[in-house]
Amino acid sequence: PLRGKHNERSGVFADLTREEYLQVQEYMLKQTDLDISTKQTTKPSENFLFLIDLSLPKKKEALEYLDGKSPKPVREATVVVFYGAKGHIKEYVVSPLPNPKKYRDVTLERYKKELPINARTVTIGEYVLIFQFFQEKVFVKLDKLLKESFNYSPKNNLNAFEQMPRGVQSGDRITWVSFFRDMSGMYIHPVGLEVLLNHKSVNSSQWTVDRLLYNGQYFDSVDELKQKYDDGTVKKIVYKESLDYGSLKPRKKPLELGPQQFYAEGKRYSINKNHVLYLDWSFAFGMSSLTGMRVFDVRFKDQRIVYELSVQEAMSVYGSVTPGMMLTKFLDSSIGIGRFGHELVRGVDCPYEATYVDTYRYIDAPAPIRFRNSICVFEHNMGQPLRRHFSDFFHNSYGGMVNSALVFRTITAIGNYDYMWDFIFYQSGAVEAKVHATGYISSSYLQDGSLKYGHQVAENVLGNIHTHFINFKVDLDVMGVKNVFQTKDMEYVNVALPWMPNRTAMIPQLVEKQLKTEQEAALRYDTKTPRYLHIASNMTNRWGHQRSYRLQVFSFTGEHLPESEAEEKAMSWARYKVAITKHKDSEQTSSSLYSQNNIWDPAVDFSKYIEDNESIEDEDLVAWVTAGFLHIPHAEDIPNTVTVGNGGGVLLRPHNYFDEDPSIHSPDGVYFGPG
Amino acid sequence: PLRGKHNERSGVFADLTREEYLQVQEYMLKQTDLDISTKQTTKPSENFLFLIDLSLPKKKEALEYLDGKSPKPVREATVVVFYGAKGHIKEYVVSPLPNPKKYRDVTLERYKKELPINARTVTIGEYVLIFQFFQEKVFVKLDKLLKESFNYSPKNNLNAFEQMPRGVQSGDRITWVSFFRDMSGMYIHPVGLEVLLNHKSVNSSQWTVDRLLYNGQYFDSVDELKQKYDDGTVKKIVYKESLDYGSLKPRKKPLELGPQQFYAEGKRYSINKNHVLYLDWSFAFGMSSLTGMRVFDVRFKDQRIVYELSVQEAMSVYGSVTPGMMLTKFLDSSIGIGRFGHELVRGVDCPYEATYVDTYRYIDAPAPIRFRNSICVFEHNMGQPLRRHFSDFFHNSYGGMVNSALVFRTITAIGNYDYMWDFIFYQSGAVEAKVHATGYISSSYLQDGSLKYGHQVAENVLGNIHTHFINFKVDLDVMGVKNVFQTKDMEYVNVALPWMPNRTAMIPQLVEKQLKTEQEAALRYDTKTPRYLHIASNMTNRWGHQRSYRLQVFSFTGEHLPESEAEEKAMSWARYKVAITKHKDSEQTSSSLYSQNNIWDPAVDFSKYIEDNESIEDEDLVAWVTAGFLHIPHAEDIPNTVTVGNGGGVLLRPHNYFDEDPSIHSPDGVYFGPG
Ligand SMILES: [Ca+2]
Ligand SMILES: [Ca+2]
Ligand SMILES: [Ca+2]
Ligand SMILES: [Ca+2]
Ligand SMILES: [Cu+2]
Ligand SMILES: [Cu+2]
Repeated sequence: PLRGKHNERSGVFADLTREEYLQVQEYMLKQTDLDISTKQTTKPSENFLFLIDLSLPKKKEALEYLDGKSPKPVREATVVVFYGAKGHIKEYVVSPLPNPKKYRDVTLERYKKELPINARTVTIGEYVLIFQFFQEKVFVKLDKLLKESFNYSPKNNLNAFEQMPRGVQSGDRITWVSFFRDMSGMYIHPVGLEVLLNHKSVNSSQWTVDRLLYNGQYFDSVDELKQKYDDGTVKKIVYKESLDYGSLKPRKKPLELGPQQFYAEGKRYSINKNHVLYLDWSFAFGMSSLTGMRVFDVRFKDQRIVYELSVQEAMSVYGSVTPGMMLTKFLDSSIGIGRFGHELVRGVDCPYEATYVDTYRYIDAPAPIRFRNSICVFEHNMGQPLRRHFSDFFHNSYGGMVNSALVFRTITAIGNYDYMWDFIFYQSGAVEAKVHATGYISSSYLQDGSLKYGHQVAENVLGNIHTHFINFKVDLDVMGVKNVFQTKDMEYVNVALPWMPNRTAMIPQLVEKQLKTEQEAALRYDTKTPRYLHIASNMTNRWGHQRSYRLQVFSFTGEHLPESEAEEKAMSWARYKVAITKHKDSEQTSSSLYSQNNIWDPAVDFSKYIEDNESIEDEDLVAWVTAGFLHIPHAEDIPNTVTVGNGGGVLLRPHNYFDEDPSIHSPDGVYFGPG
Repeated sequence: PLRGKHNERSGVFADLTREEYLQVQEYMLKQTDLDISTKQTTKPSENFLFLIDLSLPKKKEALEYLDGKSPKPVREATVVVFYGAKGHIKEYVVSPLPNPKKYRDVTLERYKKELPINARTVTIGEYVLIFQFFQEKVFVKLDKLLKESFNYSPKNNLNAFEQMPRGVQSGDRITWVSFFRDMSGMYIHPVGLEVLLNHKSVNSSQWTVDRLLYNGQYFDSVDELKQKYDDGTVKKIVYKESLDYGSLKPRKKPLELGPQQFYAEGKRYSINKNHVLYLDWSFAFGMSSLTGMRVFDVRFKDQRIVYELSVQEAMSVYGSVTPGMMLTKFLDSSIGIGRFGHELVRGVDCPYEATYVDTYRYIDAPAPIRFRNSICVFEHNMGQPLRRHFSDFFHNSYGGMVNSALVFRTITAIGNYDYMWDFIFYQSGAVEAKVHATGYISSSYLQDGSLKYGHQVAENVLGNIHTHFINFKVDLDVMGVKNVFQTKDMEYVNVALPWMPNRTAMIPQLVEKQLKTEQEAALRYDTKTPRYLHIASNMTNRWGHQRSYRLQVFSFTGEHLPESEAEEKAMSWARYKVAITKHKDSEQTSSSLYSQNNIWDPAVDFSKYIEDNESIEDEDLVAWVTAGFLHIPHAEDIPNTVTVGNGGGVLLRPHNYFDEDPSIHSPDGVYFGPG
């Protein structure tokens, strides 16, 4: 028996349906003056409809609708067109859905500037041309080298993995492409060949090879490499078969089955469309092709606590002596995090008995695609008490309760890496956002000087040192949208003992502060931050304390890129463990689709959100939380990085929000006294 | 089908059996010249056999025995006698077991000084006298006040909770005792009466009341309080019934059962005596009455990784305006952490299907006591993959494996607080030591100035700010006992781009160091510590890197007590996130049974272990790890603190220890390619 009722109004946050994608696509194609193509084979020099995604409603309108005070906001889609023929990118809002009737160019409104065409993501159409280019302009010429060094043949290809950013300044689209053996886990089978492809022009006939690296040596052209190889004046790589260490095939047969979880009396949660009910919790959910999973209107006992909790960005900075990975700084939301939310495997990715939900996306494809079972939802017995006390003095008794919580999960496999994203809803009123990394590390071919940048992890393979920084948007609304940002900590104060006034002692005291402006509340990772961080209401609980939720950040981040680097602007959110902004509909995300490929002049620079240093007192506040870890790869990252210890996140915990621990009202409580 | 065989030699770490305790007790009683009593009612002025516990074997002897190179070390017991009649405490080693034949005074050998009698733990015998003292010397005189203020009656008692340390200097035994309502969860029902009991003399007839606090006012004697109360010159507390908010009785009836875990094909671990086998893991275990749970000779694929992993101490420092909690600094191992490892509740404290193990202890009791089901062991499906990768480019395939791990758990309810201790054994070769806190917070009666020290959490109740610091001993032996301590981290270095020499970029580099001495390797919490900490061997893995285990500390500790305070010496281990010492059998623990009650001149001062600043290169190293959290109590700590977010620990992870992730050899691996 479920406690609450499903909320039809959650549909305001629902991803576009298959039908809606098709309506928008059809509508855009009807605008013949725009000259847009939706074909996968659209060339960079043509105009390509890259993305259709939900336009989130304005918060005010959504809240009024959720609270029954106004009609449903008009449903709108965002459309991204790469205008290769015109040299720019446009974002449109198409509305109303269903049956769109108008479109509006929102590029300037959203980004305050035009988006140059080279800020675009490389499409599958462009990849096809790139592979063709390598085949025709590089591989054909180097057949002897490739055969001798890599046992290359039409049946035994080399796979490409490109490094980003693509160059060193705005407008560049010059990509170091590294080559890997055509084996499973290619990412850890580098061969020692890297090619600098200049694909700045939208016309692929103008593409060039600007430089090559072979076995640690640089060459200005394919011809130079070929000639010197043939002359015998280069240090050659001689092909040697390599072990299949990247394979994930089990080396052992199954033994007994491990422990499984089951629901003896059925599930205690329910999913209807994009709305979830679980004991006292309810929330709406969605999956952005770009930023990934998100929940909205998270309520506990029907009181809204979180308006939006969403993944924003996953960023990594690499170190290497090889040119490809030397500059590598990945900004995954520019490729699409949610885009890679594929099917989850029952019994491995989520418990066998979990509920699996399909999602539909339209990104870099000729039609919307269904991603079967790409979200899982399950209640999990965490194998520990949520709380317990055994009393053997005085009132002998035992009271406790197991920690069963609801997990909402997606896993996005973005090339080599797989990020597991969890939002967890506890019966204590806490919500946790967690990420773990697994999958393959990026690697480079071992050469002189490599070991300054990581550890060798296989024959001729260096696992490159890198950082993982993840940004979450946490729009808590604590008893409404007017909130303040508080910090709490301790300090020792020397106090005279009242019963021995000539004696003093250092006693811990509570230190509370309310931070007044965005810049005060931008808490840098390289400074000491107060231990407790709270989004608080001016409303008080029964004991007179401001009701609040505390943000507890779990993180093992490495060093953030120095601000002296031009690329830093596209990742300025990572300066801060927590940064608080005044909510604006125009500041929807901390990163953008256009950050990776125009990293030097990104469409969104998070630090601008706090540059105006607005007041954050009694305002609608948003916390932008960064977590992550430093990754120094080691042999045990082969074949895959394990999740244990490789993660981070933020726990949102009630702190004087309630008058007592709400789990005392859980039906899972257990108690006994002496018989 | 289990992989390994149980190791009979693990018995060298086994707790004393019931029979062994009895043999030792009987043997000590036979030494009539010692004049020892084992009766629970033994008076402080008499000689009391307080503790019998296993004496751990010397490491060298144990290793030789484990490795089959020498016979079993003589089994020995430690005996602690409180010589009230002589004014000191003695530790003896009694041997051999079974059938002891000799005893040896090891006090000076172990502590380098005599142990004064007032360093002793308050025994149940002394508590009986204390309660009697309060009854006869305080309550009888204050009957009117007690009745009017607290509705006190013989049927409605007040419960006592004492604060420690007991005074301000060595030799003191002057304890502030706070009174609480006789309700469940008394710890959160303070009444506003605190009494300073002077029980310095072992002769209880000489005990005195040195001061009283009633409703925020101080009085020099019971008579003064009584007279001023009767005169009406004190601000009175008028009794009001209080709600039963401390009760753990469920407020709701059970709904459906939550998710449960089951072993469809039986258990994949086995326990024989004190030895556990689980897939590739094996270890011995024990439970010290003082320090709590511990494991020894932890092996993976029969290679020893950890010689000892043990709980050492749980410490808290409180802040308050009231005298009792003002000075409060709890050092739980002086009362006994393992001592309070009581029965675990099936389905709440551990999963229903877990294996439960009894323990036997002899501490402050007339006979050994069996603690039924006080350890649980279970394999748990963590509800997430240990690793996984989905490949939609090139080699399409999926490989993954669920994270099932073995949990070894005890929960110790030391008065108000319950600490849940977990050692977790992962299939990736990692071992985790974790602690979570739950149970009741300590509280004080609200008075003027209280709010500087915490938050109000119930009617007239302040939840006092405090720290939790936990110390673990981690004696890793990485490929033998000769190890080094390495740190790894990253730093940005400005590097010229080889293909554009006039351009530079900041690139992350790996920074590795080997720390040479104990003082270099004492990593203070108030300084920046390198991100990766390793115990390493000089033996290398297949890729030429030193085989190592990394210590990853999870902690949210508050400020450590300033070193200016005399009490700090008894908790000097808490200065350091990680401190590395050269192993010595004489440095078995970081704290001691005598630290709490002689906190100003403690029997063990951990900082002395590193004072001699020994070399830690190619030595047997021990890592002392401190984790914990700052606790600012809030309404949701009522009735109990929840475990979620309130914990800490250390993860021991292989780092170039293996040549690849050992979980690839797990039978739990799953793989599929395109059909
Ligand atoms: Ca702003
Ligand atoms: Ca807000
Ligand atoms: Ca030393
Ligand atoms: Ca060691
Ligand atoms: Cu990584
Ligand atoms: Cu606490």
